[in-house]
Amino acid sequence: NKLWGGRFEESVTDAVERFSESISFDKALYKQDIMGSKAHATMLAEKGLITISDRDRILDGLDDIKRRIEAGEFVWRTDREDVHMNIEAALTDMIGEPAKKLHTARSRNDQVVTDLRLWCRDAIDDILTHLKRLQVALVNLALKNEGLIVPGYTHLQRAQPVLLQHLLLSYVEQLERDAGRFADCKDRLNFCPLGACALAGTGLPIDRFMTSEALGFIAPLRNSIDAVSDRDFVLEFLSANSITAIHLSRLGEEWVLWASEEFGFLIPNDSVSTGSSIMPQKKNPDPMELVRGKSARVVGDLVTLLVLCKGLPQAYNRDLQEDKEPLFDSCKTIKGMLEVTTEFAQNISFNHERIKRALPAGHLDATTLADYLGVPFRTSHDIAGRSVAFCLSKNCQLSDLSLSELMRIDPVFEEDVYEFVGVDNSVKKFCSYGSTGSECVSEQLMFWVSKLGINTESC
Amino acid sequence: NKLWGGRFEESVTDAVERFSESISFDKALYKQDIMGSKAHATMLAEKGLITISDRDRILDGLDDIKRRIEAGEFVWRTDREDVHMNIEAALTDMIGEPAKKLHTARSRNDQVVTDLRLWCRDAIDDILTHLKRLQVALVNLALKNEGLIVPGYTHLQRAQPVLLQHLLLSYVEQLERDAGRFADCKDRLNFCPLGACALAGTGLPIDRFMTSEALGFIAPLRNSIDAVSDRDFVLEFLSANSITAIHLSRLGEEWVLWASEEFGFLIPNDSVSTGSSIMPQKKNPDPMELVRGKSARVVGDLVTLLVLCKGLPQAYNRDLQEDKEPLFDSCKTIKGMLEVTTEFAQNISFNHERIKRALPAGHLDATTLADYLGVPFRTSHDIAGRSVAFCLSKNCQLSDLSLSELMRIDPVFEEDVYEFVGVDNSVKKFCSYGSTGSECVSEQLMFWVSKLGINTESC
Amino acid sequence: NKLWGGRFEESVTDAVERFSESISFDKALYKQDIMGSKAHATMLAEKGLITISDRDRILDGLDDIKRRIEAGEFVWRTDREDVHMNIEAALTDMIGEPAKKLHTARSRNDQVVTDLRLWCRDAIDDILTHLKRLQVALVNLALKNEGLIVPGYTHLQRAQPVLLQHLLLSYVEQLERDAGRFADCKDRLNFCPLGACALAGTGLPIDRFMTSEALGFIAPLRNSIDAVSDRDFVLEFLSANSITAIHLSRLGEEWVLWASEEFGFLIPNDSVSTGSSIMPQKKNPDPMELVRGKSARVVGDLVTLLVLCKGLPQAYNRDLQEDKEPLFDSCKTIKGMLEVTTEFAQNISFNHERIKRALPAGHLDATTLADYLGVPFRTSHDIAGRSVAFCLSKNCQLSDLSLSELMRIDPVFEEDVYEFVGVDNSVKKFCSYGSTGSECVSEQLMFWVSKLGINTESC
Amino acid sequence: NKLWGGRFEESVTDAVERFSESISFDKALYKQDIMGSKAHATMLAEKGLITISDRDRILDGLDDIKRRIEAGEFVWRTDREDVHMNIEAALTDMIGEPAKKLHTARSRNDQVVTDLRLWCRDAIDDILTHLKRLQVALVNLALKNEGLIVPGYTHLQRAQPVLLQHLLLSYVEQLERDAGRFADCKDRLNFCPLGACALAGTGLPIDRFMTSEALGFIAPLRNSIDAVSDRDFVLEFLSANSITAIHLSRLGEEWVLWASEEFGFLIPNDSVSTGSSIMPQKKNPDPMELVRGKSARVVGDLVTLLVLCKGLPQAYNRDLQEDKEPLFDSCKTIKGMLEVTTEFAQNISFNHERIKRALPAGHLDATTLADYLGVPFRTSHDIAGRSVAFCLSKNCQLSDLSLSELMRIDPVFEEDVYEFVGVDNSVKKFCSYGSTGSECVSEQLMFWVSKLGINTESC
Repeated sequence: NKLWGGRFEESVTDAVERFSESISFDKALYKQDIMGSKAHATMLAEKGLITISDRDRILDGLDDIKRRIEAGEFVWRTDREDVHMNIEAALTDMIGEPAKKLHTARSRNDQVVTDLRLWCRDAIDDILTHLKRLQVALVNLALKNEGLIVPGYTHLQRAQPVLLQHLLLSYVEQLERDAGRFADCKDRLNFCPLGACALAGTGLPIDRFMTSEALGFIAPLRNSIDAVSDRDFVLEFLSANSITAIHLSRLGEEWVLWASEEFGFLIPNDSVSTGSSIMPQKKNPDPMELVRGKSARVVGDLVTLLVLCKGLPQAYNRDLQEDKEPLFDSCKTIKGMLEVTTEFAQNISFNHERIKRALPAGHLDATTLADYLGVPFRTSHDIAGRSVAFCLSKNCQLSDLSLSELMRIDPVFEEDVYEFVGVDNSVKKFCSYGSTGSECVSEQLMFWVSKLGINTESC
Repeated sequence: NKLWGGRFEESVTDAVERFSESISFDKALYKQDIMGSKAHATMLAEKGLITISDRDRILDGLDDIKRRIEAGEFVWRTDREDVHMNIEAALTDMIGEPAKKLHTARSRNDQVVTDLRLWCRDAIDDILTHLKRLQVALVNLALKNEGLIVPGYTHLQRAQPVLLQHLLLSYVEQLERDAGRFADCKDRLNFCPLGACALAGTGLPIDRFMTSEALGFIAPLRNSIDAVSDRDFVLEFLSANSITAIHLSRLGEEWVLWASEEFGFLIPNDSVSTGSSIMPQKKNPDPMELVRGKSARVVGDLVTLLVLCKGLPQAYNRDLQEDKEPLFDSCKTIKGMLEVTTEFAQNISFNHERIKRALPAGHLDATTLADYLGVPFRTSHDIAGRSVAFCLSKNCQLSDLSLSELMRIDPVFEEDVYEFVGVDNSVKKFCSYGSTGSECVSEQLMFWVSKLGINTESC
Repeated sequence: NKLWGGRFEESVTDAVERFSESISFDKALYKQDIMGSKAHATMLAEKGLITISDRDRILDGLDDIKRRIEAGEFVWRTDREDVHMNIEAALTDMIGEPAKKLHTARSRNDQVVTDLRLWCRDAIDDILTHLKRLQVALVNLALKNEGLIVPGYTHLQRAQPVLLQHLLLSYVEQLERDAGRFADCKDRLNFCPLGACALAGTGLPIDRFMTSEALGFIAPLRNSIDAVSDRDFVLEFLSANSITAIHLSRLGEEWVLWASEEFGFLIPNDSVSTGSSIMPQKKNPDPMELVRGKSARVVGDLVTLLVLCKGLPQAYNRDLQEDKEPLFDSCKTIKGMLEVTTEFAQNISFNHERIKRALPAGHLDATTLADYLGVPFRTSHDIAGRSVAFCLSKNCQLSDLSLSELMRIDPVFEEDVYEFVGVDNSVKKFCSYGSTGSECVSEQLMFWVSKLGINTESC
Repeated sequence: NKLWGGRFEESVTDAVERFSESISFDKALYKQDIMGSKAHATMLAEKGLITISDRDRILDGLDDIKRRIEAGEFVWRTDREDVHMNIEAALTDMIGEPAKKLHTARSRNDQVVTDLRLWCRDAIDDILTHLKRLQVALVNLALKNEGLIVPGYTHLQRAQPVLLQHLLLSYVEQLERDAGRFADCKDRLNFCPLGACALAGTGLPIDRFMTSEALGFIAPLRNSIDAVSDRDFVLEFLSANSITAIHLSRLGEEWVLWASEEFGFLIPNDSVSTGSSIMPQKKNPDPMELVRGKSARVVGDLVTLLVLCKGLPQAYNRDLQEDKEPLFDSCKTIKGMLEVTTEFAQNISFNHERIKRALPAGHLDATTLADYLGVPFRTSHDIAGRSVAFCLSKNCQLSDLSLSELMRIDPVFEEDVYEFVGVDNSVKKFCSYGSTGSECVSEQLMFWVSKLGINTESC
């Protein structure tokens, strides 16, 4: 009763069947599989390879199966191996003989990779939507926190004062490049393998351009062996997911830090926090910890696929069945990460008062001071450095130093130095393109508001 | 209604709940969780922290929950987060007040890692059983194919003749080292975290040695922060799985090659082969392709966990929730790989006739010839090399050359050279410990038969 | 004497200096670093931040340093930490005061990432050239082997006959998508971080568009924090390298198999083979084994960078220093892999005679036979399957069966069946777009000859 | 002039030679290679396979070569491929004919893996020494900071008060398990492959037990094919390195956090800090950032080796040449990480005053309060939670609440509650084995002082 039974006298053992089955996960492709079969049947009829009446019964049958699947009425059978055979066999159960003609001029090798490319296309669209939502949430968060200066860090040491808006937009930029990667990936994978059959094509007079077009592909793939062999589009997709995951892990790390007692910059609402079963005072930013943590599985999924494909000769090898679960898991995870980060961004506030109080620490204005001195930079760096050292010994701020103290450090200081020290002064001075200067940031913010189509009235 | 509700006024959003839930996978720990709770309750009673009657109601309740879970009657609730809270809350539903005392002097932080160590311990025992079964299957295969000489390969080029038994035992050796790694891993993880509570221990007079012993651990872990923070035992376990998976991927590759038309050395039974939906003549060694392929996910799972743990500060971070799925997936996969490889080994035969016919090709006896020449090895290598070159030009075997032809290549050859050429002669000559000489192999085979307790009568 | 000495009283320990140094590898960026400094100095002068005469002394000094580096006369000093400080300090040694002004309005944070983007741009161009060379070599190999039919494999089992040309072109297709990925990566990274300074930009009136244009970038990056923080362009580059490496590992695997005694399809010239120090008859396809093996380090390098970036908060963290060695190693490796594969392709021949002799085995024409039968595919698959089973029992080919034998299997067979069996007939029948039919392949070959600008006269 | 020249007529191309060479990195094995050759020659003479006088000339020659290598006088030649051939050929240049007999009954296949196992053995001893040094440094740091209470974190949120000593010892525990893994790895790899020759052993009457013993191995490996094929010992070693690296990355993360302005708990000396080329006030904990960052390459190296070995058939494949660089890099990196972490630990101080000031925040005593209440834990958790909520609303500490306020929250509170609130009280209450209670920690500290042989006088 197996589909390849002709020369087989014995069934596979239970353990082998259990180990080999894919129906438990590849049923996720049902929609794409039916879509592909409908396009194929339509083409077969158009080319006279099946009759119009057979086609109609096939199309109706497939529609009915789809309906049953979506209504939860369809019984998936492990002994029918995979999604392709489950649907085809169910069709045969329903309409008999015509169903047996559906597999004319195709093989599961080209069928599964057609399904997979269609699935990826949809998944990318979905991810792109989620990416944009997160960008919008971040821009809205920026709009809500105008003028808030926060410490900018390098080496997790306080470096220079920056506008929170500027920091938030840095993540928006990264997500925009992520979107570019997904779009490129989609363009590159949007070609049709259907009709490559097992690996060599077919001798039957099919029209691959017709099915390609019907399924919304750009064109049929040019080489049938390549069509069934390669999974580079999955590798590229999982790479894009991984890079996005790394971006989100970094945002996660930052917000977890900021939510700590020590930073105290960020307060999550209860709706995105959890508590402890033992410590009653705890309020944990779990969602962002999990975002950070789940980046690991996205990377793991990519590695799985790289290891999988390594060293396989052309064309289809059964190993490739293992491409699906990492793909599905990676996409599900990245969507969850985007969604939850978006909700987190929508449900936090920044503790303006505490941030303001904390700002003086760390001598964030030292670089501005160095810029102020009209001497060669290596010299001014040294003077500013000694000024900071003096502050440290006195436990005070640069702005607390008197002019005479400053002039004892170096005679280059003049009265106007006080326009350059202090965090507010410091931020005001920034003016280079892309810098944290208020005007620059404001322009960038408007750029994103407009690009993302955000209605600033409603936020 | 959340377990940490005291200071919380709002529930988490649906997306966060969906993203954070672990019940869908951590319910796999139910047995260990109940076991741990029973040991904990017993100790609490012993130390006077709860009454005997509370203890009894708790123990009975837990037994009942276990029964219900195993009968499929237990309803897992996502709003109850994880396996720990599901079981505790169900217990409270059943027995009321006493259940609320069960969480005395413990936290989910020590509870989950206790469950996990218990689970790993069982999983390792299970894997060790599967490893041994595969060793037995390989030794049995060797016993069934006594005397069969096959080409030994380096660079996938024919190198020297070896006994098939010798080749099969090389995999048995590798699996034995794998077993050693699992045993070491188990010894190292078999320490009890229970009582470490959230991270600092407790002020209540618990007895950690008592619970440790009751649960079959060697001793309690010495440091409570370490106890709840570290997942090195999972990393070590997944590393051991990965190394075994790599071993199996290599056996998979070898057997896939050997089952090809070109090699034609190995014939799988129908019960471990599959066919093609389009090519009626195909008979594919799918199980071993999948073994090779599934090695990838075992590696991916390890990478996931390494990425997960990287850069997390002490002690528990929510990221660590993500340790479970890779662990479960890795163990399930490696067990499937071992099981299916065992079945494959039990259901193949070697094509003696074809192998014998193929043996002469490749001049497998050239090294033996080089050894025969009583001259410095670098010189004999050169003479044997020129002999092979002469054979190639004449399209013949070394054993086909006449003594005068050989002596024209180098006068060192004498009549007894014919005892050293030809594959059978060649194998006979090997005598070093661990070599492919018949006697050496026979001794090794008996070593394994005895070590693995194989009854040679029945095979 | 350290560049950040102002507030420091003690030097770092030797072990820390050794551990932290990057000059041993980042000196590879010297060309880009000097290029960037020249553009920066030119802009500073243009904007009046340094004098024309300072600029000229800086430019001349930098040119001289470049010349000395390329002549091997430059002494790299570990105590000067990295390529940036080595060059700047050497400049100061040469021209004094003006050199100290070069670091005005920049930081090593934006400097290093500018260098790195410039380096990646060049590396990608280089890889694209190598990719094309390999495509040309493969197409030339196809041109040289017109008409050669080889077995096409799935599951490493013989599946259908294909033209060798068709198989070779499948790799050309994959390399073409690889090229697309590199091109996209280059477009996405070709933006200028210079002027982002430490992370916040600067208060000095620099012109970032001027430096961006001078360095051939599309535009300056829009956000200074993003500019110094992100390494997604390295991740994307290493992903592209990894996918290409996987493609090459598959070609490597295939050619290693084909060079085995058992396949015997491919004969490498001595110039791309190696022998054995002990087995005189060996001739190993080492270069392709190493291509397959070296794919591993390309994947390892990608993983290194993913792990590196995971969980780092914005903006620059010292961890990011570790981005360079994996990048350099990955690029060097992939270029070597492409180069050696190209040479291998140029130095192999296919054993036409042996391939022809081997072709009948495996019933490669069974699918064509199934297509021939004008009955529903599932039925024809079954008939063809039984025909093969009959052949197996008689140890003969499908074309050896008499019409009466065939008709006993199923009455649907007619005299014209003999036009559909046999490997040559089978290949002739393929006609679908992208199939292995001679005409289709010939068209595709011409497409590539023209696209790659190959002169078919000379090959 | 190549060692396998007999049947070869052409040299390999330059690109192939460059791509294939290993001498640039495998020369690191020179000591092990010479050691192995000396043991081999001694055995050959003992067994009568070479003369005593040949042996003596070989041993003297090898000693001389070793001396020349270590004096930097030895010229490594790329055209001699690898370390084995460089040394053997140099020996032939020196002593002529006897040198040609050295390769009797061995092959580079068993030679290289013997060298590698010897190298790993030494490397592990070295790493074990470094691990212990770091443990000592951490224990000394604990000894120096007696009584210092710090916040213990979960989710990076303040959880409970712990002794700094307790926290430091948690890392000591982790390093101890790391040491166990290395020791196990060494025991498992300490078997001798020498005499396995190419893959099949030899027909010459060698004594593998003699060479095994001379080289300090436990015994010869039992199976010659396994001996030359497997690299599981490298995989296990790199896994152990990776787990240690993850541990250090976590310590790195923690100390980087603690050195931030926001935490301000840890002050590194100048000797383990670096500054900024642009921001004069910066003092960065670079060494620990690099420790965190370099963990990535250790993981990357492991992945490289896993990918490398995946799917290779037995026995030696040229791919395996790629095992060395990841191994060397991983070991060098982990040693550097351990060394630098040790130096960092020796050069930091904890800011007792600031920590003390910061302690009240975060309600670290809430769990102790919950333990105090003699009611079922779920109830006490709720009461303590409401007490914290009340504190939050009043912006005060638990110890600031009056008894009547407490009793309004719940009547269960009594006067003695004040012995349970406040951080000092809280720490005093801990008493379970392995907890942070002063006595428990003190005992653990003494355990480690004694186990590590630390002289507490001198610290």
